[in-house]
Amino acid sequence: MKSLKQVFRISCGLFLIVSLTACAVSQTGPDPLPSWIDGPSKQRIVDFVNNVSNSDGNDFVPANERIATFDNDGTLWSEKPTYFQLMFFMDRVKTMAADHPEWRTTQPFQAVLENDMESLHEAGEHGLIELAMATHAGMTIGEFETIVNDWLATARHPTTGQPFNSMVYQPMLELMDYLRVNDFKVFIVSGGGLEFMRPWTEAVYGIPPDQVIGSSIETRYEVKNGKPVIVRLPELHFVDDKDTKPIAINRFIGRRPILAAGNSDGDFEMLEWTTSSDGPRLGLIVHHTDAEREWAYDRESSEGRLDRGLDEADQRGWLLVDMARDWQVIYPYQVVE
Amino acid sequence: MKSLKQVFRISCGLFLIVSLTACAVSQTGPDPLPSWIDGPSKQRIVDFVNNVSNSDGNDFVPANERIATFDNDGTLWSEKPTYFQLMFFMDRVKTMAADHPEWRTTQPFQAVLENDMESLHEAGEHGLIELAMATHAGMTIGEFETIVNDWLATARHPTTGQPFNSMVYQPMLELMDYLRVNDFKVFIVSGGGLEFMRPWTEAVYGIPPDQVIGSSIETRYEVKNGKPVIVRLPELHFVDDKDTKPIAINRFIGRRPILAAGNSDGDFEMLEWTTSSDGPRLGLIVHHTDAEREWAYDRESSEGRLDRGLDEADQRGWLLVDMARDWQVIYPYQVVE
Repeated sequence: MKSLKQVFRISCGLFLIVSLTACAVSQTGPDPLPSWIDGPSKQRIVDFVNNVSNSDGNDFVPANERIATFDNDGTLWSEKPTYFQLMFFMDRVKTMAADHPEWRTTQPFQAVLENDMESLHEAGEHGLIELAMATHAGMTIGEFETIVNDWLATARHPTTGQPFNSMVYQPMLELMDYLRVNDFKVFIVSGGGLEFMRPWTEAVYGIPPDQVIGSSIETRYEVKNGKPVIVRLPELHFVDDKDTKPIAINRFIGRRPILAAGNSDGDFEMLEWTTSSDGPRLGLIVHHTDAEREWAYDRESSEGRLDRGLDEADQRGWLLVDMARDWQVIYPYQVVE
Repeated sequence: MKSLKQVFRISCGLFLIVSLTACAVSQTGPDPLPSWIDGPSKQRIVDFVNNVSNSDGNDFVPANERIATFDNDGTLWSEKPTYFQLMFFMDRVKTMAADHPEWRTTQPFQAVLENDMESLHEAGEHGLIELAMATHAGMTIGEFETIVNDWLATARHPTTGQPFNSMVYQPMLELMDYLRVNDFKVFIVSGGGLEFMRPWTEAVYGIPPDQVIGSSIETRYEVKNGKPVIVRLPELHFVDDKDTKPIAINRFIGRRPILAAGNSDGDFEMLEWTTSSDGPRLGLIVHHTDAEREWAYDRESSEGRLDRGLDEADQRGWLLVDMARDWQVIYPYQVVE
């Protein structure tokens, strides 16, 4: 027969093993970032989130200050062969062309109708704005939302054949979920149109409309036959790019993020603003290195050009995510259960 | 001896009584609006919140669509003898006057330095904007935040002797808490300055900076000696008043509120926009009727003028809250525990 002391020791030992196991499980849990390949990039993200969430640590950040901002084009979804919103412009121009015979001989409309991407690129930002005004204004906000939803439901990407909002990055969806589980408030800060993104960001990214910041056109409040409407006007209100991203962050959020993610030099100032303050900060750049599964481009690309960011990421301590090396899969439809 | 049947009956009866009591308690719970006097106004609010939160009812609204917008001046805090931000302007002008001898003979600065409210009112909106530009621009956003915090910590209201942000309405604090408990997302949509409100709205109202919408000036992003700053410029960006309130709601929130609260004709369009859509909607106007405990004013007031709203509240189904009749107390510091 075992002595009472022995029984006590065995029980205590078992208790300890059970406790430690429970403890280990609760600390690691299921992998919150299964589409991220184990390695330094993933580790850096996990360490950052653990540190700011640990109320006993030196890097603790109160939950209400855990603000994270994400660029959209090239950071949360693809942007090749060209920005998806530009493909939306082009489809709109083609749909509306019957009512605008003059477009057949007027740039940049002619370029769109002839799928002449070279002339379209030559038209530059000014040309894009002209297209935006012609196709995005002159209707109520409700009518525009319907147009966006209809387009997303029917349009397909030229190379993958997928709906455009299926071409979002699975690892970034996991990252945003992981941040939210750890009480971060996650925002989009994009050069894309505010009202082009809002109809679908909540369903696809879990980001509600009031946490979407982007470029916008002017609107007017009108009461027509007793019914108020908000009408979209052919006049630019705000372009959310480069140095205006911190401006927009301050105007819409009113607090400096502690994490910012982008993929191009258009995000440089957002990362700079985010990471040049005291306390723990994470700047993250998605580097498009995967010609096989997505696209490979940086310094020479007309979409998502990444040049200065590539040069300075290291010295600024920004995490350069290598899509080919760091990501298990690219799109949600590639995930094998 | 009692028969088994009797015992069973008694137990069941007791069980039923206990259950029903528990049930009644859990349905009513502690009063979520103790500073609202029982009556039709309070009942209408409670019914509205119950209806939109009841997933079995016809008026159910999914939690992510439960958006509520509140004006600030005269709706969440007092605005007499004049707007608190104007009193801040005036204190700033007096503080800065030593460096601006020309102000002694230039309007509207002279009016401020001489406490000449009549000339100040005559200077109108243009005068106010001039004061705002002179006192609110030319510093970084961080420096301005410090100025606001310092002012709130030291300035006192001329008649109550209270810090300005103590003069918030206890019944409205309870209403905002009650809405949040029922999964509403609560926003401020005010004509006041965005960055004048944000330093204190989270502590006082429970509203984080990104849920504060207001008037704003232009800002510029600059990197000074390697350190980025956002500088406030003497140029108006946006005035959030009347028909621009729905514009701002659409731009910042991107969703139509189901509840809006204001107190003046500056909130008319916000209430109109909120309540002229299908589904359950609540428009609420705080009517200043209490000359004894706060102030009594409406159609003739230069602050918070309420004229059209008073005429049309009834036909539009807006709830006119009568401060004198509906509120048990006005300010938190009057609450007797």
